[in-house]
Amino acid sequence: MKCSRCHEEAVIYYPQSRQALCAEHLKEYIERKVKRAIERFKMLKRGEKVLVAVSGGKDSLMLWEILVDMGYDTEGLYIDLGLGEYSKSSEEYSRGFAEERDLTLRIVRVKEDHGIDIVAAAKRLRRPTCSVCGTVKRYIMNREAVEAGRVLATGHNMDDEASTLLGNLLTWNGEQLLRASPSLPSTHPKLARRIKPLIYVSERESATYCFSHGIKYIIPECPYSEGARLSVVKEALSKIEDRSPGSLLNFVDGFYRKSEGILCRRNGGIKEGVELKPCPLCGYLTSSSGPCAFCRLKSLFSSGE
Amino acid sequence: MKCSRCHEEAVIYYPQSRQALCAEHLKEYIERKVKRAIERFKMLKRGEKVLVAVSGGKDSLMLWEILVDMGYDTEGLYIDLGLGEYSKSSEEYSRGFAEERDLTLRIVRVKEDHGIDIVAAAKRLRRPTCSVCGTVKRYIMNREAVEAGRVLATGHNMDDEASTLLGNLLTWNGEQLLRASPSLPSTHPKLARRIKPLIYVSERESATYCFSHGIKYIIPECPYSEGARLSVVKEALSKIEDRSPGSLLNFVDGFYRKSEGILCRRNGGIKEGVELKPCPLCGYLTSSSGPCAFCRLKSLFSSGE
Repeated sequence: MKCSRCHEEAVIYYPQSRQALCAEHLKEYIERKVKRAIERFKMLKRGEKVLVAVSGGKDSLMLWEILVDMGYDTEGLYIDLGLGEYSKSSEEYSRGFAEERDLTLRIVRVKEDHGIDIVAAAKRLRRPTCSVCGTVKRYIMNREAVEAGRVLATGHNMDDEASTLLGNLLTWNGEQLLRASPSLPSTHPKLARRIKPLIYVSERESATYCFSHGIKYIIPECPYSEGARLSVVKEALSKIEDRSPGSLLNFVDGFYRKSEGILCRRNGGIKEGVELKPCPLCGYLTSSSGPCAFCRLKSLFSSGE
Repeated sequence: MKCSRCHEEAVIYYPQSRQALCAEHLKEYIERKVKRAIERFKMLKRGEKVLVAVSGGKDSLMLWEILVDMGYDTEGLYIDLGLGEYSKSSEEYSRGFAEERDLTLRIVRVKEDHGIDIVAAAKRLRRPTCSVCGTVKRYIMNREAVEAGRVLATGHNMDDEASTLLGNLLTWNGEQLLRASPSLPSTHPKLARRIKPLIYVSERESATYCFSHGIKYIIPECPYSEGARLSVVKEALSKIEDRSPGSLLNFVDGFYRKSEGILCRRNGGIKEGVELKPCPLCGYLTSSSGPCAFCRLKSLFSSGE
C-alpha cells in the first residue's frame, strides 16, 4: 500500500479516515498530535526543559526522540526498579537509545540508591507489586525532575489514558476522575509539573513509529504486571477500538474537552482540598500525616532487618 | 453444588461472594434486588398500577412474574413490531406466559394499528432499523401507559444499563448521561413515569431464573440488532465482569449513587431545559417543533404511497 500523501510505501493504515502513511508522514502526523497536546493543555512554555521518564519501551523512547526533534532541551531518566532480567533489559534499551543519539540519561537505582527492594516490600506489606512500584516510580520521577529543574514528561499513550480513565469510571473513583489531567501543574517547589504529551498517540502508532524509525525497545510486558486488572480493561477497550476505529481518541479527547459540564471538573482538573504537606524525613510532599509512602518503604529495609 | 442457604441443589454460583443459590433462594434474592431498586429510586408508590412492557425475552417476563408475586397490580404490553418470524415467536412467548398465569396482555400492532412498516421506514430514511424501532417502541409504550393510567416498567437489566452507560461515556453524550435515571418522573399528563426495576439484576440471573422457574422465553436476539454498536460494548463489559465479578454492579450502582459530585447531575438526574411540546397531530410530547417523530414515521405510509 502507498502513502496517501506521497509515493513511499505505507507503514500504517487508518480505517476510519481511509488514509495510509509512510514512515516519514507518520512521524509528521505524530509530531502534530504531540504539538496539539502540548498547546492545548499548555504543557510546556518556551524554553522550559524536560525530563523524559524512559522505561526502554516504545512509548517513552519515541516521546524522547520526538521532543528532541521538536527542539526541546531534554534529559532522560531511567529508574532501575531492580526487577531482575526485565530491568536489565529495559536499561540496555534505554542506554542504547541515549548513547546512539548522544543524549544524557540519568539513572536512579531503587535498590542501590535508596535501599528499597520492591518485590520484597510488596510481599512484606501484602500489596500488589505494581502498587509499590508505582509509589516508588512516582516519587523518584518527581524528585529527579524537581532537582533537575525540569518538567517531567511520561510516555502514557492514548490506550493507557483510556484504560486508566475507564478503570476509574467503572469504580467511580471520584478523586482520580476529578483531578486527572494530561498536564498537572507544579503547585509547590517540591512538586514538578507532570505532562503526558502522547495522550493522542495510540499504542499502534508508537509501535509502528519505533519499528519504522529503527528504535529498538523492550517488547515483553513487565513480568509482575501480568493479570493486572487494568490489562483486562485495556483489552476490552481494544476490542471496541477494533470495531469502531477512533473510539478511544474520542473517549480520551472527550474526557478532557467535552466532559466539562458533565463531570464536575474545576480549576483545570484539580480538585480543591487535597492537602499535601512536606514529609518530615525527605521534604517532598505527602498527603499522609507522618513520613511519605516512599520514606515508609525505605524504613522497611533500613532498621537492620 | 448445594445452595448456601438450604439443602436444595444450587442453580447459580456467585464467585465474588462464594455463594450458591437454589431456585427458590435465587428468586428471593432477585426479589430483594427489585425491592431495593424500587425503594431506592422511589419507583412505585403504594397502590400505583404497572404496565410491564414485555418482549417475550427473559428479562421482561421475569420482571412481570416478580411484580405479580410482589403483589403489584400489573398488565402486560406486547408491541408487535412487524419483524416477521421474530415478532411472531416473541408474541407467542408473551401470550403463552400471560395465558398460563391468567394475566392481561395488551397487544399493539405497529403495522395494523399505526400503519408503520419499521423495516421499510428505516430503508427509506437510511436510518438503522434499531433507531426507528426505538422511536416507535418508546412512543407506544408511553402512550399505552398514559392511556392505562399506569407506570411503565421495562425489563432493562444491569448488563443493558452498564452498556448504555458505557456507550454514553465513550462518546461523552452529556444529555443522556445527565438525564439517565432508572426512574424518570411523569412531568406532564402525556408522559408516563418510566421505571427499570431490574437495574441490579444481571442477565445471567434472569436467564437462570427463567430456566429454573419454568418461564419459556425467546432466546435469539432480534435479527436486525446484529452488529449493533452496543453489543460490542456489552461484550467488552462482559469480559471485565468475567474477570472481576461484581464490576458491573459497582459500575451501575456507582453511576446512580456515587457519581453525585463527579457527574453534574441535578434534580434527580433530570437536566433542566429540555423543552417538550405537544405534537400538533397526536398530542403526545416531542422536542421537535413540528409533528413528533412517530407521527412523521406514520406520515411516510399514509399519503397513498
